[in-house]
Amino acid sequence: MSHNPETTDFKNMVFNSFAKQGMMTHLGAQISDVQPGSVEIRLAYKTELLQQHGLFHGGATTAILDSAGGYAALSLFRPGDEVLTVEYKINFIAPAIGDELVARGEVIKTGKSLSITRGNAYVIKDGNVTLCAVMQQTMMRILNNTSSLPKKE
Amino acid sequence: MSHNPETTDFKNMVFNSFAKQGMMTHLGAQISDVQPGSVEIRLAYKTELLQQHGLFHGGATTAILDSAGGYAALSLFRPGDEVLTVEYKINFIAPAIGDELVARGEVIKTGKSLSITRGNAYVIKDGNVTLCAVMQQTMMRILNNTSSLPKKE
Amino acid sequence: MSHNPETTDFKNMVFNSFAKQGMMTHLGAQISDVQPGSVEIRLAYKTELLQQHGLFHGGATTAILDSAGGYAALSLFRPGDEVLTVEYKINFIAPAIGDELVARGEVIKTGKSLSITRGNAYVIKDGNVTLCAVMQQTMMRILNNTSSLPKKE
Amino acid sequence: MSHNPETTDFKNMVFNSFAKQGMMTHLGAQISDVQPGSVEIRLAYKTELLQQHGLFHGGATTAILDSAGGYAALSLFRPGDEVLTVEYKINFIAPAIGDELVARGEVIKTGKSLSITRGNAYVIKDGNVTLCAVMQQTMMRILNNTSSLPKKE
Repeated sequence: MSHNPETTDFKNMVFNSFAKQGMMTHLGAQISDVQPGSVEIRLAYKTELLQQHGLFHGGATTAILDSAGGYAALSLFRPGDEVLTVEYKINFIAPAIGDELVARGEVIKTGKSLSITRGNAYVIKDGNVTLCAVMQQTMMRILNNTSSLPKKE
Repeated sequence: MSHNPETTDFKNMVFNSFAKQGMMTHLGAQISDVQPGSVEIRLAYKTELLQQHGLFHGGATTAILDSAGGYAALSLFRPGDEVLTVEYKINFIAPAIGDELVARGEVIKTGKSLSITRGNAYVIKDGNVTLCAVMQQTMMRILNNTSSLPKKE
Repeated sequence: MSHNPETTDFKNMVFNSFAKQGMMTHLGAQISDVQPGSVEIRLAYKTELLQQHGLFHGGATTAILDSAGGYAALSLFRPGDEVLTVEYKINFIAPAIGDELVARGEVIKTGKSLSITRGNAYVIKDGNVTLCAVMQQTMMRILNNTSSLPKKE
Repeated sequence: MSHNPETTDFKNMVFNSFAKQGMMTHLGAQISDVQPGSVEIRLAYKTELLQQHGLFHGGATTAILDSAGGYAALSLFRPGDEVLTVEYKINFIAPAIGDELVARGEVIKTGKSLSITRGNAYVIKDGNVTLCAVMQQTMMRILNNTSSLPKKE
């Protein structure tokens, strides 16, 4: 009876960090999958998350895409390392009308200090899945041993 | 004693649209200034808006920057027109630690269907103002008379 | 003995438009593959294309990625339509040291007026292929019948 | 008769680095102004720089905007440091029809490892100046003493 401790570690890193995010809890977002370099976050419909045309607000879509990409980057780091968003770009490509938003972030490149990710957000309505936003993102690794890297850019 | 009805119109357009945004209300954001082509939105400190390091969550900063830019674009449209975010890019350049976030969006170019804006977000702590995020954004105008332009991209 | 005229059409649209680009010829770029919604462009090593560290200049990588995405969008339009770049974002993720650059652009969403693409650029050195840049791009369709859409944003 | 040696230093850093860029020379670009944190680059009309509609190719506009921002960042570094482009986003907002392109890059934030810049490109036709593209960019500083920072992301 064994398990892969490394696997446990990277999942713990992601869930522990997520649990400390007031904003994710406030929105009602939940992590639905964690793989090495790939994380999925879901957000159920609430009227508080809508914008003026009755769609999910872009800010909600963006927040879970940003987190999905960031945690995908974090999942490849060593225990104790942390992650900060340097920047991202997002395109909104279909109206986010539906019952649930699902965001998946995937690492394209993991470097010594910077990681690059891409993310897709889908909206689900009556079981139909529509790609509604795409992101490209740059994350910074904050090393556990902070002697050689900036705490914050 | 007269006033400029056009001025009233563009301010009304912005405030009316803002009032319909569940997400902005949910976050606690407020419009603090509207000029033609320039809008300012403020967001006071709440623990629900923080991320895992105790800063304002990037999603909160992004949401008010996106709205500030979008309303700046809307302020130059004709009554009845609406606005949708096509895409944006945001850089986070300083930790958003403080009592209040202020986002200002300004129109760089207003076109027949697309408007380009830039936005700056500042965090205020004990009266000190620090630039914490910058955005560049593309908005789409939805004409009141919708015969010639797509409702949604 | 038949061929698919539609296939010929979309390939002709792409090759004809490419042939008119002084800049692509000037760089020495060539289209190496055209599929519906996906275009590949190659660029061989020349000292004129380098930057100060001896790598391919980012401007060369960007130019062929932009064109690959733009032609991928064009390949899905009707004959006579044209395409303009609204905006893009590019990350440089590995040094572009090698004998050849290959860029592939793929359409993520094709809309009435806007198309969204993603692109990957690879550098080839002694047969080894390395992903060196990634792009996310917004293109505007210019309809052949221009009555209902802006000529230029 | 004295001069500020530091000023000479930052200008030399920029001009020396620029002179090593085959691509900039190939395009015919020239530095027209260097201030601390702000650099201007000009590019005169040549048929080789056009795209299929007879405008300056977006790749040319992008290349000089990227360089202007990068050298603006470099101008604030210590002698011996170098600079690499992490990523940028560019919007094309007017047709680049004219006799000359002028790009100015300005530093928004200079950090230990990352610098953020904004750039504007103008096209000049018969003396009329039109803003034709805007950029937001992330640069990485490569320290002269490379012991503590990555050579390349």
